[in-house]
Amino acid sequence: MNRKEMLSHIDHTQLKPTSDWASIARLCDEAAAYGTASVCIPPCYVARVRERYPQLNICTVIGFPLGYSTRAVKVFETEQAIADGANEIDMVVDLCDVKNGDFAAVTEEIRAIKQAAGSHVLKVIVETCYLTEAEKVALCKCVTDAGADYIKTSTGFGTGGATLEDIALFKANVGPNVRIKAAGGVRTAEAVEAYLEAGCDRIGTSSAVKALAD
Amino acid sequence: MNRKEMLSHIDHTQLKPTSDWASIARLCDEAAAYGTASVCIPPCYVARVRERYPQLNICTVIGFPLGYSTRAVKVFETEQAIADGANEIDMVVDLCDVKNGDFAAVTEEIRAIKQAAGSHVLKVIVETCYLTEAEKVALCKCVTDAGADYIKTSTGFGTGGATLEDIALFKANVGPNVRIKAAGGVRTAEAVEAYLEAGCDRIGTSSAVKALAD
Repeated sequence: MNRKEMLSHIDHTQLKPTSDWASIARLCDEAAAYGTASVCIPPCYVARVRERYPQLNICTVIGFPLGYSTRAVKVFETEQAIADGANEIDMVVDLCDVKNGDFAAVTEEIRAIKQAAGSHVLKVIVETCYLTEAEKVALCKCVTDAGADYIKTSTGFGTGGATLEDIALFKANVGPNVRIKAAGGVRTAEAVEAYLEAGCDRIGTSSAVKALAD
Repeated sequence: MNRKEMLSHIDHTQLKPTSDWASIARLCDEAAAYGTASVCIPPCYVARVRERYPQLNICTVIGFPLGYSTRAVKVFETEQAIADGANEIDMVVDLCDVKNGDFAAVTEEIRAIKQAAGSHVLKVIVETCYLTEAEKVALCKCVTDAGADYIKTSTGFGTGGATLEDIALFKANVGPNVRIKAAGGVRTAEAVEAYLEAGCDRIGTSSAVKALAD
């Protein structure tokens, strides 16, 4: 796979809590120059980026990074993000529901957010670093049943990030309409290539674009 | 200060993303037994705790821990938390606004959330680990001008927690109606006592209650 094609699968990401506007504008300029799939940015910047960069594909985060806001709040956040101009929504599942074994609630919540997202792309972050193997498999089913577009490994704010083993597990357990996004710790061109070859369709990364573009 | 009095200043806290119901119920039982100021819990558990523990003072978190959800979302979250039964709201400021030097926006946001919170206690987390001295001083003024009840040092999810130096700085720079909450890394009975003696009115801690109650 050539570098241009790899870049087209990257969600170029800046989610630090202290992101200033200069860092977001630089991210957007790079995304436009290198043809990444999207920019992934904090919700507070979506409206401003939509105004200044009307052509960019904007991804933002919901219930991020801990996942335990209420369902009503996540739905409201999703509606607000789309009204502000977001094209793609990366939500975090309620890991409290997961740890209580209430996978029906997890599925219902994803379904409610998918409904709020309408035709926009919905990616579901399961935060693998906190999950048992059985929970990962159960969440593949939740994401599939709820009609989400992607399952995503990690927030980048947990105790661990993407692993190739988890990508293989997802591939074996999600339905045919669910694609896979790796995120968290994917920092080099070689890592991007390895995750794409493992079957990922998107890679969330803050640093790999520079490596690929050089 | 005796242990009972110290316990009455503690927000007994469980904010792990993977908190199961058993851990929240244990927290509530301990809070009731030891007479802490409140339980501080994820928003997704507020309604259930209100139902099972009608007498408890419930604190929950808004825009937590990164602070960059939109103002509209933070206001909605606050209204929802209060409708679910929360008594106190611990919000995170928008650190992106802080890093852009837009302290007027920070003040307006706190004021909007204070309005949504009505007569309920509002604590404003400034996340000191990411701030310069000048930013800390400016935020003391934002919190005071906006009419919030407390300034709070940390989320416990950043790169650092409370320090006695920051408490002294807050004391010198907030108005007379703003109290101080220390949180993040306060783990022992000795630390609780030191922060109370330094002028804090509340301490957020996950582990100190056990030490104080033993």
